[in-house]
Amino acid sequence: MCFKNRNILITGGAGFIGSNLAIQLVEAGAKVTLVDSMIPEYGGNLFNIESIRDRLTLNISDVRDEHAMKYLIQGQDFLFNLAGQTSHLDSMQNPYPDLEINARAQLSILEACRRHNPAIKVVFASTRQLYGTPQYLPVDEQHPIHPVDVNGINKMAGEWYHLVYHNVYGIRTVVLRLTNTFGPRMRVKDARQTFLGIWVRRVVEGKPFQVFGDGLQLRDYNYIDDVVDAMLLCATDSRADGQIFNLGAEHPVSLKATADLLLQAAQAGRYEMIPFPAERKAIDIGDYYADFGKLRRLLGWHPQIELLEGLTRTVRFYKEHQNCYWGDDEL
Amino acid sequence: MCFKNRNILITGGAGFIGSNLAIQLVEAGAKVTLVDSMIPEYGGNLFNIESIRDRLTLNISDVRDEHAMKYLIQGQDFLFNLAGQTSHLDSMQNPYPDLEINARAQLSILEACRRHNPAIKVVFASTRQLYGTPQYLPVDEQHPIHPVDVNGINKMAGEWYHLVYHNVYGIRTVVLRLTNTFGPRMRVKDARQTFLGIWVRRVVEGKPFQVFGDGLQLRDYNYIDDVVDAMLLCATDSRADGQIFNLGAEHPVSLKATADLLLQAAQAGRYEMIPFPAERKAIDIGDYYADFGKLRRLLGWHPQIELLEGLTRTVRFYKEHQNCYWGDDEL
Repeated sequence: MCFKNRNILITGGAGFIGSNLAIQLVEAGAKVTLVDSMIPEYGGNLFNIESIRDRLTLNISDVRDEHAMKYLIQGQDFLFNLAGQTSHLDSMQNPYPDLEINARAQLSILEACRRHNPAIKVVFASTRQLYGTPQYLPVDEQHPIHPVDVNGINKMAGEWYHLVYHNVYGIRTVVLRLTNTFGPRMRVKDARQTFLGIWVRRVVEGKPFQVFGDGLQLRDYNYIDDVVDAMLLCATDSRADGQIFNLGAEHPVSLKATADLLLQAAQAGRYEMIPFPAERKAIDIGDYYADFGKLRRLLGWHPQIELLEGLTRTVRFYKEHQNCYWGDDEL
Repeated sequence: MCFKNRNILITGGAGFIGSNLAIQLVEAGAKVTLVDSMIPEYGGNLFNIESIRDRLTLNISDVRDEHAMKYLIQGQDFLFNLAGQTSHLDSMQNPYPDLEINARAQLSILEACRRHNPAIKVVFASTRQLYGTPQYLPVDEQHPIHPVDVNGINKMAGEWYHLVYHNVYGIRTVVLRLTNTFGPRMRVKDARQTFLGIWVRRVVEGKPFQVFGDGLQLRDYNYIDDVVDAMLLCATDSRADGQIFNLGAEHPVSLKATADLLLQAAQAGRYEMIPFPAERKAIDIGDYYADFGKLRRLLGWHPQIELLEGLTRTVRFYKEHQNCYWGDDEL
């Protein structure tokens, strides 16, 4: 995989996945431009890119800004299209920003590709959320799509625009359906991005965190470096064009076992089990874990970092840098 | 089914399906309000409702007008939510109006229901287009969703908002996935709504119409009265709440056989076979016919009007009223 001197645009570039991707690509000699809206509730944090800040271009703008995107897309070899509204609860409380970011902006990005840069390669970050409550496990890419909230519907639309622009116009797009991704630079300030974020923060702060329900729900997790690997692999391999791939882990883990591993990783901490809050229960999907065999078979990808190792690295990162991620904010 | 004195709102009410539904409901003594944008390229035509014009309320406005919709939805017992952008080609040439009408406006209609009239019953007109190229035939509701154009994606989002607002908020919604609906008051001015429209116009004008491809493609058709019956049935039966139902016909018919039946119905006319235009080929789905067994089993619906009989009634209608549907327009 050679990215030296290639022109690369990353939307959501100051966020969790975008910044980790940017670090690898800058190290590989790529000419990287990041787009990030820096909306406080979302994942962008300039500390995420501090180590590479003078070796890339940072463009603070919003993917909803059609004119900015039209300009920024021109001349790029690759687009890692990661910007999104990720809060399920927000999407139900006010569905319009979610629609604008996760659906409409995706359409305008693809229109810009079609009209101004049809040779670009696009890797789109989608989500397991589209499957809804699993009808069978593990969930493969043939599983029916059955979103359970407005966020899932809008992400579904955004994903399908990518597929249709491939099928009809030949734009080289790849869709990755991510599961729970974690690691350094994730949003840990609150529970907006993933419950693991707030768990990590609490443990680092020496405070108890909460596990919802009976703790037996199964989940799968990918450490950020494995997700970045999958994206780079899909970017450079034409066999991925027009495809949807699940990411996933070798083994599912219960919430309670995850909590125990986190305590082990931190060598400290405690948690309490509490019933599901009603608003979360309404959109909860029960057990989930993915079958990522399609990506393994086609491109040889499989995750390398075990959950305990990933959690250990994550806790270490936030112990060192907590002042850059939540500072003095009280929860 | 008693609609006497019930308050009913129909979006797309001056269009093909909306106007036929309105006629039946007004005859049944309902208090009907129609919303129609009267955008010339869409299906609204005031002649459609001429026979009932003084027995209903016509509100010319656009489903994209959130404030109008919020007001109009209040106090209604039923919403037949039929307004849509239906042109596949338009959705590819300029995808934004399609997104605004078929996705965003649906979200704001449902938000208005949730906040201002949560007891309303909503029947939503979706489309077989969501299934894309069939993976098996006949296509039942379990068939994977696989839209082939932007219109299909936005309709998919609009449909799923209805389902999520049922599942999460308990709004009583029903989704009908329509196949080719035809009959009096359909748009025949051009091919925007369905190829059958332009066929009927040509035959009535005594001009040849065109059949794309080899004419062997299979389709299923529903006469408008059968579709209206399905909608009324779903409106009044709580077993339909939160469900998706296919409509469909007893037997699929090839394009060529359809063309021959149309000539028989008109007792005149001719057609020519031509290769698929490239822009249509790119979004063509091959054979399609639905399994409507779910609606048959659950609510006892099945189509009553044979294709030849339906075409005969349709041709008769347009022979009588052609000046109200295309006047002197040249094609």
